[in-house]
Amino acid sequence: MLRPIPRAVSTAIPTTNLSTRWLYARFSSSVASAQPQVIFSGIQPTGVPHLGNYLGALRQWVKLQNEAPPNATILYSIVDLHAITIRQDPVQLRQWRREMLASLLSVGLDPKRSIIFYQSDVAAHSELMWILSCYASVGYLSRMTQWKSKLALPENTSPLDPSTKTKLKLGLFSYPVLQAADILVHRATHVPVGADQSQHLEFARECANSFNHNFQHVLVPPETILSPAKRVMSLTRPHLKMSKSHEDPKSRILITDSREEISRKINSALTDSVAGVTYDPLNRPGVSNLIHIMYHLDETIADSCEALAGDCRDLSLRAFKERVIDAVDEQLKSVRIKYEELMQPNNDHLLSDISDEGSRKASANANATMSLVRGALGL
Amino acid sequence: MLRPIPRAVSTAIPTTNLSTRWLYARFSSSVASAQPQVIFSGIQPTGVPHLGNYLGALRQWVKLQNEAPPNATILYSIVDLHAITIRQDPVQLRQWRREMLASLLSVGLDPKRSIIFYQSDVAAHSELMWILSCYASVGYLSRMTQWKSKLALPENTSPLDPSTKTKLKLGLFSYPVLQAADILVHRATHVPVGADQSQHLEFARECANSFNHNFQHVLVPPETILSPAKRVMSLTRPHLKMSKSHEDPKSRILITDSREEISRKINSALTDSVAGVTYDPLNRPGVSNLIHIMYHLDETIADSCEALAGDCRDLSLRAFKERVIDAVDEQLKSVRIKYEELMQPNNDHLLSDISDEGSRKASANANATMSLVRGALGL
Repeated sequence: MLRPIPRAVSTAIPTTNLSTRWLYARFSSSVASAQPQVIFSGIQPTGVPHLGNYLGALRQWVKLQNEAPPNATILYSIVDLHAITIRQDPVQLRQWRREMLASLLSVGLDPKRSIIFYQSDVAAHSELMWILSCYASVGYLSRMTQWKSKLALPENTSPLDPSTKTKLKLGLFSYPVLQAADILVHRATHVPVGADQSQHLEFARECANSFNHNFQHVLVPPETILSPAKRVMSLTRPHLKMSKSHEDPKSRILITDSREEISRKINSALTDSVAGVTYDPLNRPGVSNLIHIMYHLDETIADSCEALAGDCRDLSLRAFKERVIDAVDEQLKSVRIKYEELMQPNNDHLLSDISDEGSRKASANANATMSLVRGALGL
Repeated sequence: MLRPIPRAVSTAIPTTNLSTRWLYARFSSSVASAQPQVIFSGIQPTGVPHLGNYLGALRQWVKLQNEAPPNATILYSIVDLHAITIRQDPVQLRQWRREMLASLLSVGLDPKRSIIFYQSDVAAHSELMWILSCYASVGYLSRMTQWKSKLALPENTSPLDPSTKTKLKLGLFSYPVLQAADILVHRATHVPVGADQSQHLEFARECANSFNHNFQHVLVPPETILSPAKRVMSLTRPHLKMSKSHEDPKSRILITDSREEISRKINSALTDSVAGVTYDPLNRPGVSNLIHIMYHLDETIADSCEALAGDCRDLSLRAFKERVIDAVDEQLKSVRIKYEELMQPNNDHLLSDISDEGSRKASANANATMSLVRGALGL
């Protein structure tokens, strides 16, 4: 299979779909330009990420970090202010924030290169959120989809429907405005996100353009880097996405799982009674999900999922699962070792030093934007 | 007329209505308790205040400052983040902020005793706003009246009515949440406001109680100090409140107007052709408004508006207006002199030093609350 190689981001090219490839190409062309890049993305503090988070987002973050030009600024935020738009247990949230920080470091984010910080440590995110909210229309926000999906409401729900209006909190309704502020306050040029977030990125661009049009040209409309669509499915219900919110912990592999946990989960993964291995997501979702995981964890082992399935076609499902276990364990071993080391009680200081340093740098970056914004508004 | 004298706030007692008196009594009883008071209020940067602002709010702020116990913390904020919920010209806003600061100092607020600051200089206001918004229901906010009155919409308007939803910006809709944050972030115990703001104060109390109930008891539900109802009316259309937004500048007296301006405005004030002076707001609104202004500028000159009217009953309207001009000029002279001095170009530094010092102190006070709030939420 042909793999086009744009300059500067050679190994980051997804091969799965055209639109992603196009977006990477656009990223790559701006890499070559004189304008220094600012890469920003965020992840909610949901504790240790699972394989879906890792393959869908975090591994791409690491690649972007490692392949960005030296003059690029890279910011990754643990977005705890977004997390509280749904109810959180304070003790658990505190723990989850720390686990997410240790996870980001374990997968290969380097605090010397990337600015890694808790969103709530950088006041400018909330400050710009308020300012943007003064120009964002309630009608536009009521048409956005996220508050409806988070409350499990149909697409045509109005925020003032009788069954909705007490449940719907202003924070959840305003979520896209905070997300726009996250991006714009750092003058991000490139934002890697999943396809489900492209509506919010479009909103962020509109916020920037409208501000620039009405005041001074101080905000930067960001470009989306669409994450390669690597949908990892649940091990127990392979028609659903792997998710932290599913009840059964055996439905997901955490990136810090031990070999024993990986083995137990994959051995009990729902497959089927068809003999041999084939890649057929529609008719054999369980088996295909395992192939998908194995292939995307190390894309050098085959040219595609289909090719990998071909290599394994004569294996029994039991033997195939052993291969998947080996592959997953092999890829996650170093993540797990790093994580366990970081979570040692004697490393508490190390983690807080890293987040303090990150919040210091992120605040400096954001405050520079806020000075321009205040000046433009007459504040 | 009997004037009850509660301890510690002897001269601040309004004599106009029972509810106000009751609220002052409540304030006074908490003055006597061990709990240190925190007094907070805010005013939008609309440039130099007029007589209505002065008699309705600012003079009370000065009284509260001068009569508060030594251990009370007093904060007065120029709420520029609220101002931008309606469209502002940046150059004018910058000028209006400065004029408001100089005005607050000119009427007698002492930056050594009161913390005077621009809201947008203290990030914690926006930070707590976001946090409170995660617990404030969209349905509750849609029933509040302010966004409707600011957009000149009827009371029964829904935020999603076709004619409303593009006009209504999220900031204006969320105004009460920022106002609650202003108060709660300083753990204010007492908030002097006009009657039109009591719905927002009730909302702030509910925000505090609900947060305390769900997390830890870290926020303080504030008590309202209702401003004495001194409705100063327009000089040109005395059935309307004196307002900065009326087109005709002759409709209002600014607290920095020269004697000539005062004289010109009062001489052209709309009165009637009835001979003599009587206090009859319903049938003689223009004349009664002038009596009202004169009496409340210096309540030692008579026992009531009626008594003052009695003292002036035989004067021609022309002679009566001369008396009013003298009284207004006498009361505003020192304000004007102080203001002119502060607005000298060589005093630019003085004003910015004062607002810098205010924002430093206010930030320290607010950040202490934010530490407690973050701890309670697990952030």
